[in-house]
Amino acid sequence: MAPRTPIPLITVDLKKRPWEQEKPLHNRWHPDIPPVAEVKEGNLFRVETVDWTAGQIGDNDSAEDVKKVDLSQVHYLSGPIKVSDKDGVAAKPGDLLVVEICNLGALPGDEWGFTGTFDRDNGGGFLTDHFPEATKAIWQFEGIYAASRHIPGVRFPGIIHPGLIGTAPSQELLEIWNTRERGLVEAGEKAVTLGGVLHTRPLACLPTVEGACLGKVGKGAPDWERIAGEAARTVPGRENGGNCDIKNLTRGCKVYFPVFVEGANLSMGDMHFSQGDGEVSFCGAIEMSGFLEIKCDIIRGGMEQYLTPMGPTKLHVNPIFEIGPLEPRFSEWLVFEGISVDETGKQHYLDASVAYKRAVLNCIDYFSKFGYTKSQIYLLLSCCPCEGRISGIVDVPNACATLAVPIAIFDQDVRPKKGGPPVGPRLVKRGDVPRATYDGSAPTFKNPCGCC
Amino acid sequence: MAPRTPIPLITVDLKKRPWEQEKPLHNRWHPDIPPVAEVKEGNLFRVETVDWTAGQIGDNDSAEDVKKVDLSQVHYLSGPIKVSDKDGVAAKPGDLLVVEICNLGALPGDEWGFTGTFDRDNGGGFLTDHFPEATKAIWQFEGIYAASRHIPGVRFPGIIHPGLIGTAPSQELLEIWNTRERGLVEAGEKAVTLGGVLHTRPLACLPTVEGACLGKVGKGAPDWERIAGEAARTVPGRENGGNCDIKNLTRGCKVYFPVFVEGANLSMGDMHFSQGDGEVSFCGAIEMSGFLEIKCDIIRGGMEQYLTPMGPTKLHVNPIFEIGPLEPRFSEWLVFEGISVDETGKQHYLDASVAYKRAVLNCIDYFSKFGYTKSQIYLLLSCCPCEGRISGIVDVPNACATLAVPIAIFDQDVRPKKGGPPVGPRLVKRGDVPRATYDGSAPTFKNPCGCC
Amino acid sequence: MAPRTPIPLITVDLKKRPWEQEKPLHNRWHPDIPPVAEVKEGNLFRVETVDWTAGQIGDNDSAEDVKKVDLSQVHYLSGPIKVSDKDGVAAKPGDLLVVEICNLGALPGDEWGFTGTFDRDNGGGFLTDHFPEATKAIWQFEGIYAASRHIPGVRFPGIIHPGLIGTAPSQELLEIWNTRERGLVEAGEKAVTLGGVLHTRPLACLPTVEGACLGKVGKGAPDWERIAGEAARTVPGRENGGNCDIKNLTRGCKVYFPVFVEGANLSMGDMHFSQGDGEVSFCGAIEMSGFLEIKCDIIRGGMEQYLTPMGPTKLHVNPIFEIGPLEPRFSEWLVFEGISVDETGKQHYLDASVAYKRAVLNCIDYFSKFGYTKSQIYLLLSCCPCEGRISGIVDVPNACATLAVPIAIFDQDVRPKKGGPPVGPRLVKRGDVPRATYDGSAPTFKNPCGCC
Amino acid sequence: MAPRTPIPLITVDLKKRPWEQEKPLHNRWHPDIPPVAEVKEGNLFRVETVDWTAGQIGDNDSAEDVKKVDLSQVHYLSGPIKVSDKDGVAAKPGDLLVVEICNLGALPGDEWGFTGTFDRDNGGGFLTDHFPEATKAIWQFEGIYAASRHIPGVRFPGIIHPGLIGTAPSQELLEIWNTRERGLVEAGEKAVTLGGVLHTRPLACLPTVEGACLGKVGKGAPDWERIAGEAARTVPGRENGGNCDIKNLTRGCKVYFPVFVEGANLSMGDMHFSQGDGEVSFCGAIEMSGFLEIKCDIIRGGMEQYLTPMGPTKLHVNPIFEIGPLEPRFSEWLVFEGISVDETGKQHYLDASVAYKRAVLNCIDYFSKFGYTKSQIYLLLSCCPCEGRISGIVDVPNACATLAVPIAIFDQDVRPKKGGPPVGPRLVKRGDVPRATYDGSAPTFKNPCGCC
Repeated sequence: MAPRTPIPLITVDLKKRPWEQEKPLHNRWHPDIPPVAEVKEGNLFRVETVDWTAGQIGDNDSAEDVKKVDLSQVHYLSGPIKVSDKDGVAAKPGDLLVVEICNLGALPGDEWGFTGTFDRDNGGGFLTDHFPEATKAIWQFEGIYAASRHIPGVRFPGIIHPGLIGTAPSQELLEIWNTRERGLVEAGEKAVTLGGVLHTRPLACLPTVEGACLGKVGKGAPDWERIAGEAARTVPGRENGGNCDIKNLTRGCKVYFPVFVEGANLSMGDMHFSQGDGEVSFCGAIEMSGFLEIKCDIIRGGMEQYLTPMGPTKLHVNPIFEIGPLEPRFSEWLVFEGISVDETGKQHYLDASVAYKRAVLNCIDYFSKFGYTKSQIYLLLSCCPCEGRISGIVDVPNACATLAVPIAIFDQDVRPKKGGPPVGPRLVKRGDVPRATYDGSAPTFKNPCGCC
Repeated sequence: MAPRTPIPLITVDLKKRPWEQEKPLHNRWHPDIPPVAEVKEGNLFRVETVDWTAGQIGDNDSAEDVKKVDLSQVHYLSGPIKVSDKDGVAAKPGDLLVVEICNLGALPGDEWGFTGTFDRDNGGGFLTDHFPEATKAIWQFEGIYAASRHIPGVRFPGIIHPGLIGTAPSQELLEIWNTRERGLVEAGEKAVTLGGVLHTRPLACLPTVEGACLGKVGKGAPDWERIAGEAARTVPGRENGGNCDIKNLTRGCKVYFPVFVEGANLSMGDMHFSQGDGEVSFCGAIEMSGFLEIKCDIIRGGMEQYLTPMGPTKLHVNPIFEIGPLEPRFSEWLVFEGISVDETGKQHYLDASVAYKRAVLNCIDYFSKFGYTKSQIYLLLSCCPCEGRISGIVDVPNACATLAVPIAIFDQDVRPKKGGPPVGPRLVKRGDVPRATYDGSAPTFKNPCGCC
Repeated sequence: MAPRTPIPLITVDLKKRPWEQEKPLHNRWHPDIPPVAEVKEGNLFRVETVDWTAGQIGDNDSAEDVKKVDLSQVHYLSGPIKVSDKDGVAAKPGDLLVVEICNLGALPGDEWGFTGTFDRDNGGGFLTDHFPEATKAIWQFEGIYAASRHIPGVRFPGIIHPGLIGTAPSQELLEIWNTRERGLVEAGEKAVTLGGVLHTRPLACLPTVEGACLGKVGKGAPDWERIAGEAARTVPGRENGGNCDIKNLTRGCKVYFPVFVEGANLSMGDMHFSQGDGEVSFCGAIEMSGFLEIKCDIIRGGMEQYLTPMGPTKLHVNPIFEIGPLEPRFSEWLVFEGISVDETGKQHYLDASVAYKRAVLNCIDYFSKFGYTKSQIYLLLSCCPCEGRISGIVDVPNACATLAVPIAIFDQDVRPKKGGPPVGPRLVKRGDVPRATYDGSAPTFKNPCGCC
Repeated sequence: MAPRTPIPLITVDLKKRPWEQEKPLHNRWHPDIPPVAEVKEGNLFRVETVDWTAGQIGDNDSAEDVKKVDLSQVHYLSGPIKVSDKDGVAAKPGDLLVVEICNLGALPGDEWGFTGTFDRDNGGGFLTDHFPEATKAIWQFEGIYAASRHIPGVRFPGIIHPGLIGTAPSQELLEIWNTRERGLVEAGEKAVTLGGVLHTRPLACLPTVEGACLGKVGKGAPDWERIAGEAARTVPGRENGGNCDIKNLTRGCKVYFPVFVEGANLSMGDMHFSQGDGEVSFCGAIEMSGFLEIKCDIIRGGMEQYLTPMGPTKLHVNPIFEIGPLEPRFSEWLVFEGISVDETGKQHYLDASVAYKRAVLNCIDYFSKFGYTKSQIYLLLSCCPCEGRISGIVDVPNACATLAVPIAIFDQDVRPKKGGPPVGPRLVKRGDVPRATYDGSAPTFKNPCGCC
C-alpha cells in the first residue's frame, strides 16, 4: 500500500535563520549547491518554505522594514531536491522533470502575508516613478480568502502558488546567464533611458558574494567564495523556470522543467497567497511562508522531444506549464486598456511594457474614485487575481495591453453608472497603507542587489 | 410596447463596393466624416459590416491575394452613428458612451473567414523575420465552431467580436495623434533597430490620401482632399478605442467610450470570428463580414467622473471594457513561457514584447512536433482562443510572458508524455497552408500603408 | 469545397398554419409519418420551427389565451428528417444517430417568447395546487438576453435549446408506450391521490385523433384515422428522446439518439430561449419559434455497443447527451433546499418530487420578499437558468432536493443581510403578471389533452 | 490585531473513542445536549471531526467491516458549539446563524477515505435491489485529488464538504420530527411497496437508546435515558440542516441556518472528500475525518425576515445555502437520462426518484462497457463530482432526471465513437472492489438503525 501521507521531505522552523534550518536554504542558482533531499518519481512529498525574505518583513503597521529590506539576500529557497526514477536512477540532463502540484497552502500558525512597494532607491517597481515611497499592506488569511486591514473593502480567494520554482542550471547555462546579463548592465545607461520609463531601477542583478547563502556549502567551505562569486541571482525567471511568478500555477497544475544537472536539483520558494499578472509592485504578491505537496515524474530525453532551443546553444529553452480546472471562476470583469503612448503623451513602437504600464495607471486612477488612495490600489493590483493581457501586438504603432479586474473582489459596485461614483472621491474613508518617506535624493543607480 | 426586433440601422450588400453601399463606409478617423445613421439610447439596433479589406481576400487556395493586398484602404467601417438620449439630445464631448453588445455573428450566406500572414514587405507581422512569406488559411463556420481545410485537426468555438470599434476623434485629438505618430516615424531608424526584433515593419501609418474612403464625403466633395490628408489611419487602437483587437469583447460585453464630438459618432468593423491574444500574424484573427446587435446608453459627464487623462491634455484617456459571463469555459491549458532574452540569446531589459515573442516561438515549435508545419501553428495562434499574459514585469532583467492554449481545440492529446510525441514529427500528414513566395529582396521600408 | 452556408432544410412561415407549411409539421409520434426532408451525415443543415403551440399565445398583456389554449394540438414539430450516411445508405434500427447542435436561435423578426402557468383545469403545473390561475409573462430578447415587462428587475442570458427533439418510434415501441401509459391511467384515482400533491392533473395524455396533425399524411388520407388513433402524444420524454426539456442542450452539445426506424426520422421543436431545471410551471420555459443548425452522424450498430435496454424488450433505452463548454458561467448562487416533508407537514419516503416541490416553494417565498409577487417568481423559476438537483436520495426518510438560482440575474443584491430585506415586502413596486381568473370549480379530471 | 490563526475550538484524537474525546462527540439531535465550546461571531475557528462511523471502516481490502457496520451509532458529530454576538449575547431562537466555510480538508496523517455499499439487510442503498452485497473502495488523497486502488483509471479533484452540519432542534421541533416519522413507519408496508422500487430498506430511523452518544451527557447521567429515548437520529436532513449531503458546500460557501435554541448549538461531521449528487450508494461519498475553518455571524430576527414556514407551525423551514466561485470547472460532460418508467418497464407518474434511478442505472451500464464492473461504477457515481438534475417534472407522465458525469475524470476517452468501445467489454482489466457475500435471505425489515 502506498503511504497514506505526503513524505515530509523539507520542513522549516520559522524561528530559525535560513542557514540554521535542518536542511539549509539557499538563495542563489549554482550547479554545485548539493541536494539536501532526495525523492523518487511517483511519491507524494511535502516541502515547506519561508517567505522570500526569510522574515525581514513584519506583521505590523510600519513600512520601514520594506524600505530597508536587504535585497542581496533574496529569495530563500527550499532544496535542491534530487529526483530519481523508480529504479533509483537519477534524472539526467536532457530529461524533462514533471512536477505536479497536488496541494499547497500557508503554514499552520503563520496565516498572513504582505504586499509592498519598494523605495525607489532600494528595489523600485513597475511604477516606481509614480510611487517612489516604500509602502506595505498586511493580509490576513481566512481559509481561502485574504483581507487586509490596510485596504478595507476588498476580499478575494487566493490562487496560491510558488512564485519561484526551478531546476539547477549547469555550469554552461550559468555562464550564458552571467554573460548576457553582464552585457546588459555594461550597455548600461543608454538602454535604461529608452522611453524614460523605467530608468531608476537596476538593469540586472549580477552575482554578488554579499548576502549569498549556498545551502550545504557553508561559508567556511573551500568552494564558497568561488560559488558565491559566480552563482546567479534568483531575481529573474530564466531557462530553468525560476522566478516566473506565473499566478495560476496552483493546485492541480503541472510544470515540465528541463533538466540541466544530474538529479535535476529542484528548488522552490517565494510562496504567494495570490498575485496579479505582472506582480507590478515588485514586492509584490501576497508574500508568505507555506508548504507544497508535490509529485515528480521523469520524461527521459524529453528536452529533445518537446523543447526547441532558440539561440546559440541547446540550452535556450523554457519550461512548459499545464493549468488545471481549479481556479476560482469569476464571471464579470472590468477591463482597463493601455496603448504604447506613455503617460507624457509620447508615442512608442509596439511596446507592450509601456502599454501595460498605461493600463495599470488607468486602472489605479479609476478605482481611486471609489474611496481608495492610489497606493492602496497599486498594492491591490499587484496581488489580487487580476489578469494582464497582451491584446494587440501588431497594429503599428500601438501595442494594446489590458488589465482585467474581477468585480466580485470589491464590497461595492464599481462599474461606471449614470451620475458618477457614489458621492465624489473618498466616499468611504478607507484609510491608507503604511508609508516610509521617500528621501527624494536623486536616483543613485547603486544596485540594491549589492552587485556593484 | 418596445419593438420586437433590432432596428436595422446599417445594412451592407456584399456585392457592392464600400462607397456604393446605401450608407457608405469609411476607412479613416476624422471628426468631419458625417454620421450615416442616428439612434437613441436604449434602442436595440443592428449594424452590418464588411470584412476589414472589403472583399480583397477570397475563399480559395492561393495566398496571392494576401501578398498583394492593398493596405492603404483598410479598415472599412460601418458608421458613424450619431447617438442621442431619450429626449433626442445628442451625446456631447465629455460624456461616456456605453455600448452593450447584445448579439453578433456572421452574415447569413457568408459563413467563412480567413487568417493570413502578410508578406514581409507588405504588412509583415509579429514574427515576420521568421515567416516572411504571405500565407492564408480559410475557415469554415459550423455554427459556433470554426474549422479549416488548411489546418486540419483543430476546431474551436469562436468568441466573435468586433476588432475595431470606436468613437470619432475631435480635431484636437486628431492632431495629437498625427503629431506623436509622425514624431515616431521621424525618429526613425534608430528606434526600429532596437533589439533588432521588429525592424522590417513600418513604424506607423501616417495619413495618406491614397486609398482614403470618407463615407458621405465623396471624392469630389470640396473638403475631401483636406480631410483625407489629415484623417487618421485605423490601424492602431487609440484614445477612442479603435483597433483594440480585444478578443473577449463578445456577446454580453459593454464598452464605456469617451465622447469627443457631438453625437459620439460611433463606427465599427473588422469583425473577428475568433482571435488569439496579440493577433500575432497581423492578418490575423479569423476575419469576416458580420453583424452586431447593440444598445447604447449615455453617461453625462462621465469622462470626468470616471476617466483620468494622462499626458498634456484632457484627451489622453482610454475606454473601459466590461466582460460578461459568456465566454467558452476551457478547463485545461498548455502554457508556454517566454523571457526577454531574444531568439539570438541577447538579453533585453523587462521587454514584454520580446518575452511574448519568445513565448509564441516556443509554442509554435512545440505544436509543430504534432504533425503541423510552423506556418500552420503561427496562423492558428493568431486566431484560436489562446491567452497572452504578462506574467512578470518586474523581475529584472527578464519580463516573463506566457501564452496559454486550450488543449481541447486539438483532436489529439498534445500534452508531453513519456516516450515523446506520437511517432516523431509529421505523424499525421496535416498538409499545409497556401503560400506566396517571398521575393527575398532586402526590406524596402516602403510604408505599405502608402503614406510615404 | 464544402458549402459555405447551412443547407436550408426546413423553413417555416409564421403566418401560415402548421399544415399549410411547405413541409407540413406534425404533433404526434408515429413510424408512418413520412419524412419531409432528407440529409446526409456530415452536412450542416438548418431547421426552423414554430413555437410549440403554433401561435396560440400572443405578445400581449392578457392571460386569456393561456387559459384557453388547445392542448390537444401540441407540440408542433419540424420533420421528420431522414438521415443517410455519405454513401446514401439510410440510418437503420440499431444505429445511434449523433446530432450535433452547431447553432440555434430566435427567428429574425420574431425575437420574443412567453412563459405561463396553465389553468388548473386545463394543463395545470407542478404547483397547480398553489397557483391554479392561468398567468403569462412576455419576454423580449435583446440578443443573448431576455427581459420581461411583466417581471421587471431581472435579465439573464438564454441557454437556448430545443425542448423537444427525437427520433421516430417503431411500431413495437409505440405499442409499448401506449400500453404502459394506458395502464397508468386505468390504475387511476388511487395513484393520483398519493400524497395528495399532484392530484388535479391528468395522469397521462393518451392518443387522441382530436387535434392530431400528421405531416404529409393529410386529414383525408386513407391511413389518417388509424395513425391518429394510435400515434403517441408528444408530452413526455421517452426512449426516443422527445420532450426531455434538458435545459443545457445548447450550442456545442451532442445527442446520441437510438434509431428505431429506417432513416431515423428526426423531428424537433418546442424551442426554448431559456428554461429552469424542471420547467416547473409546465407552460414553462421561455417558449419561442426558432432555428437550429445541425450536423448528423451515424454510429452503425451503436445501440448495442453503447446502450443497455432495461425492461422486457431491447427497446427500453434512453439517449445520451454530451454537454460542451459554452454555457454562461455564473459564479455565485443562492441555493434553496427541500426535503420530502410536504407543505402540510406530512412525511414522505425518499420522494424527490416532493422534496423538489418544497425547494421550489421555499425559493418562491424567499424572493417574494424582494418586491415580487409569488406568481412572478413561479414563472421566473420556470424559465431562468436555475439548477434543480437531487442532492440526497438515500437518507431515510428524507430525499433532499436543491434549487440553485444565480444571483446575477437580479438587479438588486438578494442575499440575506443583517437588518432584513431592503424595506419590508414590496419595496419596489414590480407590478405583476397578467392573470386569468380561476373558475374555482372542482377539478374535473377531464383530460385537457382530449384523450378521454 | 485579529488573531493570526484559526482558534482551535474542537480537536479530535483519532486513537480515542468518541466519548473519550476531550470535547465528547454526539450522534443524536436533542436540545438538551449541552455545548462543548463557545465562539463569538466574526472569529475564525477550527473544528476537527472523525469520520461518520468513528473508525468502524478500515483502510484494507475487505468489505466485511462495511457489511457488519453498527448503524445505530452514526453519525458522530463535533459540537454543539454555542454562538454569541460580539457583545457576548447568545444567538436566539428566530435568528439566522450564518456559517461561512473558509477552509476545510483532511486531517494531516489521515489522508484517505472510503466509499461503500451496505448489505441489503444492513443499510441498503438507492440501488440495493440491484447491488445487495456490501462492497468497499478505498481512496488515497494526493492533495486535491482522490484515486483508488479499487477503481483504477479514474482520478478527480475533491469538492470537500461536511455531509452533515446543523443547529440543534428545539423540543417542539424534535417532537414534530418524531411524530411525522413515526407516522410514516406506522403507515408501513403500504407505502413501501409503492412502485416496488425501494421496498427493502427501513422507512425511517426512529429514536433508539441503543448506540446513542450524547456528548457531555454521560451514560450514567440522570437524563440520559430520557434524552436518548427521544433524541432524533441524524440520518435524514431536516429543518435544521443536518445530513443534507449537498456536495457543493465547500470552501467559500455560506449557510444560513435557522436558530431554534439559545446559542444555536451548531454541530457538524460526516466529512466528504467528494460526493456525487444523490450519494447513491448511501455509504456513499468519500468518507473521511477532517477539519473545518469557519466563521459565524448572526442575523437577528432573520428567520421571520427571510424564511417562510410551510406546515402547521412556524418551525417548518429550511436553511439557505450560498455557493461561491471555487468549484472545479469541468467543461465537458456525458449526460445520462432516466424517465419515470422503471427497470421492469412499468410506468410511474412524474416520479423523480424513479427517473433518477433509471438515469443512474443507464450510466452504470454505459461505463461498464469501458472495462469496469458495475459495482465499481456504482461506487464511483456515489462519490465523484457528478451532477443529478431534475430536468423535467411536469410532462405527464414522465419525470425526466439526468446524471451528468465530467469526462475528464477518466484516463480514457469515454465518449461514444464509431466502431464502439475500444475492444469490447473489459478491454482493460480494471480489477474489482472488495465484496462481502450477500446472504440472500429474505429482506427482514429489521431496522438496522436499531429502532424496532
